Amino acid sequence: MHAYRTQTCADLTAADVGKTVRLSGWVHRVRDHGGILFIDLRDTYGVTQLLCDPDSDAFADVEKVRAEWCIRIDGEVKARDPQLVNPKLPTGEIEVFVREIEVLGAAKELPLQVFGDQEYPEETRLKYRYLDLRREAMQKNMTLRSNVVRSMRQRMWDQGFREFQTPIITASSPEGARDFLVPSRLHPGKFYALPQAPQQFKQLIMVSGYDKYFQIAPCFRDEDPRADRSPTDFYQLDLEMSFVEQQDVFDMIQPVIGGIFEEFGGGRKVDQTWEQISYRDAALWYGTDKPDLRNPIKMQVVSEHFAGSGFAIFAKLLEQDGTEVRAIPAPGGGSRKFCDRMNAFAQQQGLPGMGYIFWRDQGEGMEAAGPLAKNIGPERTEAIRQQLGLNVGDAAFFLGGKPEAFEGVAGRARTVIGEELNLTDKDRFAFAWIVDFPIYARDEETGKIDFEHNPFSMPQGGMEALQGDPLDVLGFQYDLACNGYELVSGAIRNHKPEIMFKAFEIAGYGKEEVEKRFGGMVNAFQYGAPPHGGCAAGIDRIVMLLADEANIREVIMFPMNQRAEDLMMGAPSEPMNEQLRELRLRVLPPEA
Amino acid sequence: MHAYRTQTCADLTAADVGKTVRLSGWVHRVRDHGGILFIDLRDTYGVTQLLCDPDSDAFADVEKVRAEWCIRIDGEVKARDPQLVNPKLPTGEIEVFVREIEVLGAAKELPLQVFGDQEYPEETRLKYRYLDLRREAMQKNMTLRSNVVRSMRQRMWDQGFREFQTPIITASSPEGARDFLVPSRLHPGKFYALPQAPQQFKQLIMVSGYDKYFQIAPCFRDEDPRADRSPTDFYQLDLEMSFVEQQDVFDMIQPVIGGIFEEFGGGRKVDQTWEQISYRDAALWYGTDKPDLRNPIKMQVVSEHFAGSGFAIFAKLLEQDGTEVRAIPAPGGGSRKFCDRMNAFAQQQGLPGMGYIFWRDQGEGMEAAGPLAKNIGPERTEAIRQQLGLNVGDAAFFLGGKPEAFEGVAGRARTVIGEELNLTDKDRFAFAWIVDFPIYARDEETGKIDFEHNPFSMPQGGMEALQGDPLDVLGFQYDLACNGYELVSGAIRNHKPEIMFKAFEIAGYGKEEVEKRFGGMVNAFQYGAPPHGGCAAGIDRIVMLLADEANIREVIMFPMNQRAEDLMMGAPSEPMNEQLRELRLRVLPPEA
Repeated sequence: MHAYRTQTCADLTAADVGKTVRLSGWVHRVRDHGGILFIDLRDTYGVTQLLCDPDSDAFADVEKVRAEWCIRIDGEVKARDPQLVNPKLPTGEIEVFVREIEVLGAAKELPLQVFGDQEYPEETRLKYRYLDLRREAMQKNMTLRSNVVRSMRQRMWDQGFREFQTPIITASSPEGARDFLVPSRLHPGKFYALPQAPQQFKQLIMVSGYDKYFQIAPCFRDEDPRADRSPTDFYQLDLEMSFVEQQDVFDMIQPVIGGIFEEFGGGRKVDQTWEQISYRDAALWYGTDKPDLRNPIKMQVVSEHFAGSGFAIFAKLLEQDGTEVRAIPAPGGGSRKFCDRMNAFAQQQGLPGMGYIFWRDQGEGMEAAGPLAKNIGPERTEAIRQQLGLNVGDAAFFLGGKPEAFEGVAGRARTVIGEELNLTDKDRFAFAWIVDFPIYARDEETGKIDFEHNPFSMPQGGMEALQGDPLDVLGFQYDLACNGYELVSGAIRNHKPEIMFKAFEIAGYGKEEVEKRFGGMVNAFQYGAPPHGGCAAGIDRIVMLLADEANIREVIMFPMNQRAEDLMMGAPSEPMNEQLRELRLRVLPPEA
Repeated sequence: MHAYRTQTCADLTAADVGKTVRLSGWVHRVRDHGGILFIDLRDTYGVTQLLCDPDSDAFADVEKVRAEWCIRIDGEVKARDPQLVNPKLPTGEIEVFVREIEVLGAAKELPLQVFGDQEYPEETRLKYRYLDLRREAMQKNMTLRSNVVRSMRQRMWDQGFREFQTPIITASSPEGARDFLVPSRLHPGKFYALPQAPQQFKQLIMVSGYDKYFQIAPCFRDEDPRADRSPTDFYQLDLEMSFVEQQDVFDMIQPVIGGIFEEFGGGRKVDQTWEQISYRDAALWYGTDKPDLRNPIKMQVVSEHFAGSGFAIFAKLLEQDGTEVRAIPAPGGGSRKFCDRMNAFAQQQGLPGMGYIFWRDQGEGMEAAGPLAKNIGPERTEAIRQQLGLNVGDAAFFLGGKPEAFEGVAGRARTVIGEELNLTDKDRFAFAWIVDFPIYARDEETGKIDFEHNPFSMPQGGMEALQGDPLDVLGFQYDLACNGYELVSGAIRNHKPEIMFKAFEIAGYGKEEVEKRFGGMVNAFQYGAPPHGGCAAGIDRIVMLLADEANIREVIMFPMNQRAEDLMMGAPSEPMNEQLRELRLRVLPPEA
């Protein structure tokens, strides 16, 4: 007989009745029914009910076990009384009468119960993560994550991609966030960096002629912690392909990401049509570049109805250059109470308020209510209603000014309106590609032109486009939005050295600086670089969405806390003097 | 038509003749046959022959291309003349007449040719790795590596394991080698460490109840560089399982590793029976704990034949405690020339020499020759011959003293003898488990008892064994040797806190120190730890063996050089002052 088990805790059924078996697992729960002990024995596969009474030689020892002790038992499989059969459990037809017990690992008093749904402070959960991870929800999340990553890999291979590992101890690769540095012992005073992403390496793999690369890649960013991101390392599905245009990347990734959501979405609807929305349209319609399309509300420009109207605030505003009035339609929001609440929301968000109109029927036909309607009069009000396609019982909210100034609030208002009016379908994953990102933006304060996003993207129109107004240049750059999150980000890369130098020059970076900062890649591009592009998908975030969790730490096995500490392992910690000496480093005292 | 290609460079066959196609790839080779240009166009999938002559409008542009330019062409598929068909190429029946060409990426003069087998200094290869990686041998090695890792994963899943990612930025976990440190910005003066292996985390995963874990895990050791290891990061197939004994781990891993060698060994014989050899026997028989069993030579103790014999050196030696004489049989080595060469080898290795006997037939029957034979006389010589099973034409070499002092040289002599006499079967992968490693060793100089290997292994016999002589305690610890390399290393772990504390106490580590150094794990063991064990397999080394390469850098895409530098990316490098300031670090000047 095997030293620890003949079956797992999920295996035994009525067919096994009469057999002598050996099981190992954890004591999930002990119940004492007047001299008869019932124990739910748990392993990662399932639960089996044990029982023991004084007829068994093991009774005295069985009486001693407590929750979360790890034990091994030998016993006989018995059929449960028909009225005690538990149809929800695969092992619900049987129980095992314990004849022999061995304590494999006893447990001290538990700081955290595994059985049940009690909530614990995050610090407790992280410090005793090995107990927390035994809980059903965490077992489910970790299994999900493992399965998702496996399926991703399979889907990538199915599309002809190969996985290659890129270096983790490497050069600083400035990409916006802070690098983690690693001091070199062999070269004291010099430092390696951990990669923020394998961006340069994957492009080098393309220059090396490998055609289709992917990697479930650890990425490292020394960022200030936030609930929805890990403060140290996180994982991306990183991929790159040669000889492709933007649409090729879309066609390749949709079956991978969409397939994952189909496979693990638990029956929630997965949109099959992934609209392509320009960055500018996304800002206009949704107030964000990661719109939640489960929410059907689409904002519209309604400036014409306010220009020269009796609503002086907007009318005046519209006389200034670059201003607009936009409407957020709110189907079903046609009550003063609701409109006032939304107005208050806008005020909380730092705006003076949100004008509104709502349409009601008080027995005398449709009536447009609200202060705005009075100010602009019935004709304009009706034109607005028709443009927005609204009706009795609906409302619309209005924001005016320079779009950059109110777009963010408008987007958040759209979300809240969708939620409050139950317009947002929770059982759905809605995807859209956001495309045509501008390459450059002008810093409002300095007036300086700088890269708005990734400096490695190919400008649409190539070198020619770079001769005109930089602010008009769009990139072959794209994000995939899902339910309000950015799941994927990518680009067709700028693989032509001359276009790259020009693009950097516009942003104020000289040739020398580009060569210094991105030398590895820029040099490589001078030896026969293929056109290439790709993207990266955030794995933690995908699993979060699938698991319906709001905190990234629910889908990472051993996460840092929000102060970037591992309380269980005691990281970070003071180094030994010997270590600092070898690295020729000194820690300076805090500044006074 | 697709912007870059309708087919890859491996796709076109006679069936495509007459079609207009578009191909992209690299100019592998250009040949000018008197006004007709032939170009081998290469991508990662294959090679297609292009041709162009002045009939084509593209001729002038085609004339300009050089090796390793990346181009896109449009053209017509033509059948080759029957005598020009190349049966070795999948595309050997056709060629493509170029009608249009676009240079996607031109190349400067090449520091390294992709076509052909010319050898280049390693520094050149690493600096221009993107060219080096285009070469056929590297494409093959990288493809092999990618396939091996994929197959490993598949095999692990097939055995019910799940892959989980463990932290990379974590706590120092002293395991013998040096840690790479990562200074913390949020906690200046404190440092994270990169894991030397996920040892503690995988054990915590077992305590968390996950039963079967694996990971293709990056590992980090700040070691002085060597040809057969990476100076920074490397990859292991890391695995752990609960409720198992040593034999369970063997039974699980053999199909994985053995299967990989079957799948990717290119027809080389893969041993099906993996002998279990104790650490002590391995030292005796092979002079190493990673024997190459393709070499049939097995050393033997022959002390009795020399004790009190006329060969005074050995006779005297054997009067001292702890000494032995061992023989290396050398079937087919029976010539004075060969024996003298081996003797010289032993002298190069720092020994006074290796005595030998060889057996020849000079027409008068078998004769034992060599100085030793004369000294010990015919009876003892014959007894040795019979023990070793040797015959005319064979030889035996003899080493005496304390085994620790000569075992290493004996092992190397065995290797050289096997090679020189062609006894070692090169077309074979020979595996053996080395088991029963001693837990402790006594430091010769200090007399202190310390761990010989991994301190986390379960001592055979448990707590009881730790009450006796520490030097007699063996561990449930094992290595897998293949062709002279250690491929896998593992153990059944010590999961009982009291046995662990006792084991450390014997090696001179107090409870407090153990709790400080391994606190995460030791704490966890007090909350219901299951018995568990596992192992880690070196991926780089497995791929090296399969690819028949002697240098690890041949199977790593972007390796560091032997000074732990990345010449292509420029790592390590000087940090910015701003970065050091944020970390509150100062680099000290070199000591005078």
